[in-house]
Amino acid sequence: MRIGYAQTNPVFGEKEKNLKRALKLLEAAAGLEADLVVLPELFNTGYVFRSMREVWKLAEQIPDGYTSKALLDFAEENGLHVCAGICEATKEGTYNSALLAGPSGHCVTYRKIHLFGREKLWFMPGNAGLKVFAAGGVKVGIMICFDWFFPESARVLALGGAQVVCHPANLVLPYCQTAMLGSALQNKVFVVTANRTGVERSTRFTGRSQIVGPDMRVLARSGLREDVKVVKIRPEDADDKRVTRFNDLFKDRRPEMYGPICSG
Amino acid sequence: MRIGYAQTNPVFGEKEKNLKRALKLLEAAAGLEADLVVLPELFNTGYVFRSMREVWKLAEQIPDGYTSKALLDFAEENGLHVCAGICEATKEGTYNSALLAGPSGHCVTYRKIHLFGREKLWFMPGNAGLKVFAAGGVKVGIMICFDWFFPESARVLALGGAQVVCHPANLVLPYCQTAMLGSALQNKVFVVTANRTGVERSTRFTGRSQIVGPDMRVLARSGLREDVKVVKIRPEDADDKRVTRFNDLFKDRRPEMYGPICSG
Repeated sequence: MRIGYAQTNPVFGEKEKNLKRALKLLEAAAGLEADLVVLPELFNTGYVFRSMREVWKLAEQIPDGYTSKALLDFAEENGLHVCAGICEATKEGTYNSALLAGPSGHCVTYRKIHLFGREKLWFMPGNAGLKVFAAGGVKVGIMICFDWFFPESARVLALGGAQVVCHPANLVLPYCQTAMLGSALQNKVFVVTANRTGVERSTRFTGRSQIVGPDMRVLARSGLREDVKVVKIRPEDADDKRVTRFNDLFKDRRPEMYGPICSG
Repeated sequence: MRIGYAQTNPVFGEKEKNLKRALKLLEAAAGLEADLVVLPELFNTGYVFRSMREVWKLAEQIPDGYTSKALLDFAEENGLHVCAGICEATKEGTYNSALLAGPSGHCVTYRKIHLFGREKLWFMPGNAGLKVFAAGGVKVGIMICFDWFFPESARVLALGGAQVVCHPANLVLPYCQTAMLGSALQNKVFVVTANRTGVERSTRFTGRSQIVGPDMRVLARSGLREDVKVVKIRPEDADDKRVTRFNDLFKDRRPEMYGPICSG
């Protein structure tokens, strides 16, 4: 199968324009025979909100909103899965969410559990947990941007059976791309970090989206421009947690020693 | 304060010779005003055991064995702490352990909880957990070699208050040095990986010992030769878990979402 990402440069608040551009890049990914494509965090709205009014104005329901519908249509027409970050409107408030859309419809919505910076002013922290979804022959987990800083995020997804971790991002710090090498290896999963690029309201995003394999190899990496990358993988490589004939990364875990991680 | 390591190239079974050489390198570290120095895993015995008979022949009690005593004497005479990997003999069996020796005596013994490859034939898995010890003004945690592959190890130590993670190692794979960049950053701790170098019974060790700071910077790194490095640090830098004025890496954790990590 083939997995990929589109690295985009959205304009704040220009949802139609951003969606149109993203669909164009998704088409390029489909042309490269991608089965699963990841878009950045908040790819349709932009990132640098200045008021709750702006947040509510741009937020959409998942899966019934304008953006979700367009992505679901695209996924159905092209027979692939798309994971994309969307500013989600719900009755109880707004979330920094990511939708997984597939040929058969809405798969799952993940709501970011570790909010970064001012996101805490705009979004409620996700309370639905880290989920793994079987999407067309590959088990997909989702984490969003700053979740990467917490090694627990990728770990929980991998323990849940994820083969590919979709990681929509709007990175402003320079560390993630290096840290994900270790996370991919320590969990023996594929990690697709789809970052945005460009400058928005004086905030500069760091681009350099990448796909890392379970053996720590960088399978694809972008620079600072808009970009599309698709690579061929064998998802089952992520099921093999052996390191030596004596070692299996999951069987060798010592959960009874890890208590402090899960106690408040 | 100053922390450092000695990267050594022991000869299998030649305990006196290996200890003598290590003490010489420790003297060099003391000359550089080190307060805490880390030696590799199994620094006095070598690594590639071929029988339990060899293991028992070389194993020593901690802190009453020959090697421990020499390190305790050195620590007292030089007013510093030494963390060193030792093949430990106990009534119930042998462990792949690390001693922390200080000016006031034996501080703590850590017994490796994740055994690598054939170590499973020679050693019992440590059951005393990952500990943090206040050693002369700095809070020290210990993990040994393959423990690094489990993100839980450094995490448990950091949550326990460790400022410096001492990491005696006998690495044969090429991944650890890169992965520790992420672990140091995600936990905002210093990580001192003291690896051995050289070839022993056809097994090649990868050297490249390093010290990484809580900001992911490589503060020192060696090549493939025997080496001593000492760097000045402010241990309190590891106490500051802030990332932005809205974010604190430990307060932002969501332990209620991490359950799978701690359940068997």
